[in-house]
Amino acid sequence: MKKISLLGATGSIGWQTCDILKNHPEEFQLVAFSAGKNIEKTQEIIRNLQPELVSVQEEKDALALKNEFPHIHFTYGQEGLIEVATHPETSIVVNAVLGSVGLPSTLAAIRMGKTIAIANKETLVTAGHLVMEEAKKHRVPILPVDSEHSAIFQSLNGENPKQIKRLILTASGGAFRDKTRDELKHVTVKEALNHPNWSMGAKITIDSATMMNKGLEVIEAHVLFDIPFDQIDVLLHKESIIHSMVEFHDTSVIAQLGTPDMRVPIQYALSYPDRLPLIGGKPLNLAEIGSLHFKEVDFERFKALKLAYEAGRTGGTILTAMNAANEAAVQLFLQEKIAFLEIEEIIERIMDSHNNVLQPDLETILHVDKETRKKVLQMVQ
Amino acid sequence: MKKISLLGATGSIGWQTCDILKNHPEEFQLVAFSAGKNIEKTQEIIRNLQPELVSVQEEKDALALKNEFPHIHFTYGQEGLIEVATHPETSIVVNAVLGSVGLPSTLAAIRMGKTIAIANKETLVTAGHLVMEEAKKHRVPILPVDSEHSAIFQSLNGENPKQIKRLILTASGGAFRDKTRDELKHVTVKEALNHPNWSMGAKITIDSATMMNKGLEVIEAHVLFDIPFDQIDVLLHKESIIHSMVEFHDTSVIAQLGTPDMRVPIQYALSYPDRLPLIGGKPLNLAEIGSLHFKEVDFERFKALKLAYEAGRTGGTILTAMNAANEAAVQLFLQEKIAFLEIEEIIERIMDSHNNVLQPDLETILHVDKETRKKVLQMVQ
Repeated sequence: MKKISLLGATGSIGWQTCDILKNHPEEFQLVAFSAGKNIEKTQEIIRNLQPELVSVQEEKDALALKNEFPHIHFTYGQEGLIEVATHPETSIVVNAVLGSVGLPSTLAAIRMGKTIAIANKETLVTAGHLVMEEAKKHRVPILPVDSEHSAIFQSLNGENPKQIKRLILTASGGAFRDKTRDELKHVTVKEALNHPNWSMGAKITIDSATMMNKGLEVIEAHVLFDIPFDQIDVLLHKESIIHSMVEFHDTSVIAQLGTPDMRVPIQYALSYPDRLPLIGGKPLNLAEIGSLHFKEVDFERFKALKLAYEAGRTGGTILTAMNAANEAAVQLFLQEKIAFLEIEEIIERIMDSHNNVLQPDLETILHVDKETRKKVLQMVQ
Repeated sequence: MKKISLLGATGSIGWQTCDILKNHPEEFQLVAFSAGKNIEKTQEIIRNLQPELVSVQEEKDALALKNEFPHIHFTYGQEGLIEVATHPETSIVVNAVLGSVGLPSTLAAIRMGKTIAIANKETLVTAGHLVMEEAKKHRVPILPVDSEHSAIFQSLNGENPKQIKRLILTASGGAFRDKTRDELKHVTVKEALNHPNWSMGAKITIDSATMMNKGLEVIEAHVLFDIPFDQIDVLLHKESIIHSMVEFHDTSVIAQLGTPDMRVPIQYALSYPDRLPLIGGKPLNLAEIGSLHFKEVDFERFKALKLAYEAGRTGGTILTAMNAANEAAVQLFLQEKIAFLEIEEIIERIMDSHNNVLQPDLETILHVDKETRKKVLQMVQ
């Protein structure tokens, strides 16, 4: 029985994680989880999975829940996240919160020797060096939950990482893959949220449309697998059936494939090194799909991806600046305050004016994060 | 330094094996090899790789070679094959002979504790139970050299075989994949030898065109990986880029891909569990290829595949009968004595009239093999 803490239980990944835990009560026990402001979903998870500790965003919600579930311990805010992540009974922490808010709790969990299943890209993008350093020091595995990184992780199973020639991350191209830059000028939020293959949260769906999502994944892959950026390629593959690949120096390529279903990589991170049956999973039927397509990425068309490679190669606080600018800009786009192409424009302006600090500590990262968000808001006022 | 014995050095697989050994002199040493009647190639291998022992088919060739290379030991015939396979210095025996002639030497090598890299399908198809039993007893690994089985072997690396749901062998469909059964009536030997993707020997190229090749591979996969026939599927994939796949019970599929090049699986069997750079290998470029296609197999169109599944599910000497009938019929087709569709007709007639013996010993297998070939010759007289 593996005991789990789940950060961000009511988001898309968190919710699917709960589904897996519910389907395998012999294997997993949810010890603690954190949620934001969605109290209805929080109540449902409590009823289904009977955790010992729950953290929500606001104190008043914690108090109200305590009245309803008197035998459960409730807490709230940033401190609450850390309490959930460091629960003494927990052996695996699933970090499925959105944005950089998951960083301090992840570091705290690593220091307590917990295995981290990481779905939170921003933690690795902005503080990859800190996370991996701590993980190495405390001999803690960092298991990817993202479908691309899980595919690479699965493809590397049993292999010698020294014999890797290239990581190949596949990219659907998002909602606008067939549009020219000119056509992108007037796309709406509704159109951007219509991802062709994956059912995900709003922020990540917009990131797919700009391909900043793939940019963050390239940086994440660099951090997780310790592979130089020159050996990480992105390949357009509109069907999202091959989730990613590893090329070895004998020219052999190992790939992980499947029907797009986030529960596969989530469950793999939890069951690793084993595999459990996926309840309700749809087996891959390639004959039915008929054909898979591949295309080179045009870095002028997908400018956000180019910016991400640039920030990745530079390293330091520019990664935090890029990520915070993207989070803030996507927020503004979702609020219909800026146009779609302004997202990458804002990121580029922030990166151009950034005073970079290499090997930043946690405090510096959090400071740059906060300041960048402020700067973005000032830009559009 | 791994010391190698190579059975069938002048055939297509043997020749490519020599190429790999030549490219990695720090890693491998060819201790002994066997050849048939191609003395020119035999001389070239001797000059390039300086083995200690060489076996040829005929005594007179052995004597002539001894005059030319007085410091090398020569032998010949079936006894010679066994001497090569059991050379005391050898740790890996590559079995790349054609047909059932490789069986006794393979069994002898296993009994001496040699690792077997097996490119000889017939050994596993006709005597799979004997080979795997001996291998288990002597704790000897049987490493596949065939590209499909190597793909499965690579995909299974680090995985728990109990969690396999399905093996998916891909099939190009061979030279006649786009022809109807009616169109197959009058195809020529030259047309049949024109394989779209792979450069291989004549017998295996004809087997690709009839898909008996895939049938033998299904049986081989059953033997090598101990998976029931109901869990082994064949998928038409005309580009031969995905070499085969494994589906696990979490719906995840792991696949091995690459430019069609037999040196990849040959080298992998020799370097396993490591990978060595492939000298002169062409990396896979999926963007350049553009698309991969998949189609269900029509068992009425590819009748030989259906017959192979039938023989596989039945087990026993019918496997030897099927294989010998196929070898003899392909020979007759190459000699332009029968038409293409008569190959499967002959196999079916042999199978229909076969008195099956389950769990046969080596003697019985060799007897059925010989008798079946005779019967096939009688059929066409």
